[in-house]
Amino acid sequence: MEYRRFGNDIILRLDPGEEICASLLFLADKEDIMLAGISGLGAINSFTTGVFYTAEKQYHSNDFEGYFEISSLTGTLSRQEDRPYLHVHMSAGDVKGNVFGGHLNRAVVSATAEIVIHIIDGEVGRKYSDEVGLNLFEF
Amino acid sequence: MEYRRFGNDIILRLDPGEEICASLLFLADKEDIMLAGISGLGAINSFTTGVFYTAEKQYHSNDFEGYFEISSLTGTLSRQEDRPYLHVHMSAGDVKGNVFGGHLNRAVVSATAEIVIHIIDGEVGRKYSDEVGLNLFEF
Amino acid sequence: MEYRRFGNDIILRLDPGEEICASLLFLADKEDIMLAGISGLGAINSFTTGVFYTAEKQYHSNDFEGYFEISSLTGTLSRQEDRPYLHVHMSAGDVKGNVFGGHLNRAVVSATAEIVIHIIDGEVGRKYSDEVGLNLFEF
Repeated sequence: MEYRRFGNDIILRLDPGEEICASLLFLADKEDIMLAGISGLGAINSFTTGVFYTAEKQYHSNDFEGYFEISSLTGTLSRQEDRPYLHVHMSAGDVKGNVFGGHLNRAVVSATAEIVIHIIDGEVGRKYSDEVGLNLFEF
Repeated sequence: MEYRRFGNDIILRLDPGEEICASLLFLADKEDIMLAGISGLGAINSFTTGVFYTAEKQYHSNDFEGYFEISSLTGTLSRQEDRPYLHVHMSAGDVKGNVFGGHLNRAVVSATAEIVIHIIDGEVGRKYSDEVGLNLFEF
Repeated sequence: MEYRRFGNDIILRLDPGEEICASLLFLADKEDIMLAGISGLGAINSFTTGVFYTAEKQYHSNDFEGYFEISSLTGTLSRQEDRPYLHVHMSAGDVKGNVFGGHLNRAVVSATAEIVIHIIDGEVGRKYSDEVGLNLFEF
């Protein structure tokens, strides 16, 4: 991982073997990010996405292995009880260009990942909702 | 719907049952947004996307029902004749992670949606193009 | 191609027959953009995406023709040896809403494309990595 901050924007490069979610949480902690939007791309060879079953209030996950290109990585960094909280969704295309994705649990970089983090001067917390079964933005 | 504005960025949470396009237009009207970029994610259970047939100058639509995760929501808010104009495209993954999408007509939130709206200090209008058959940005 | 710059944001419209990658590089050169994030949507009728085979250090490409809607266009503009360097990935949905994508080599606009370019006040270069086989961000 290498990055540089320019004002409220961070440009981040991840390297082979690095896991995207863990890396973004590490960065949020190190740079003391309270609130940010995330946008990125890259190449990965192993990832897990989830889909939330609202009736069961549970995520079901799908695992993928092989050559994949992240076609979009979209999400936010916020805080829950003063700790960084990441919420990112992803689409990734396989060797034929077929695209798979959903809620991102983990993705391991195979070649490089390039992520823009747009820091917002403010704070939004999160609170668990019994009704929904997720940690929702709390204003 | 709940949101907070920090400078030129708005963080928006949508709740179960809320429709994304209508909610974004409501927000644009309420916050008097002239021009903005939109980026988001979420979980939805019913949506319609369209694809534009350029020869016919018409959209054909596809309807989807079930557990879906928005992997990307991308678009703009602008104005046409002083009224808010939304143009958003979306990808969403199903329970197997297969991704579907296109021009977004409607999407109903099942659990939550989290959207970042980046307001741009400026104005771009729209005008119907007979040649293309769409309302295009007019500079 | 028509566009307007508002502070650090550019709103760009591409027209039928224009190729997205070439247009973004032209804009980067003309507007002297050193570093920027890119987000967009649109309708295209011909495009090529690639997937990087890390073992071979080569891209394999897939060609698509037909009515497609760009569901997400995500990337960066940076510089390599003082020349604009574009890195964009894309997802696009076909007439059934099936989404295809990956590293974007070329995409030809069929109706319109609407792209937001967020200029970052800074510079990040690129350098070829023998190990990875790609031009990576260099900080």
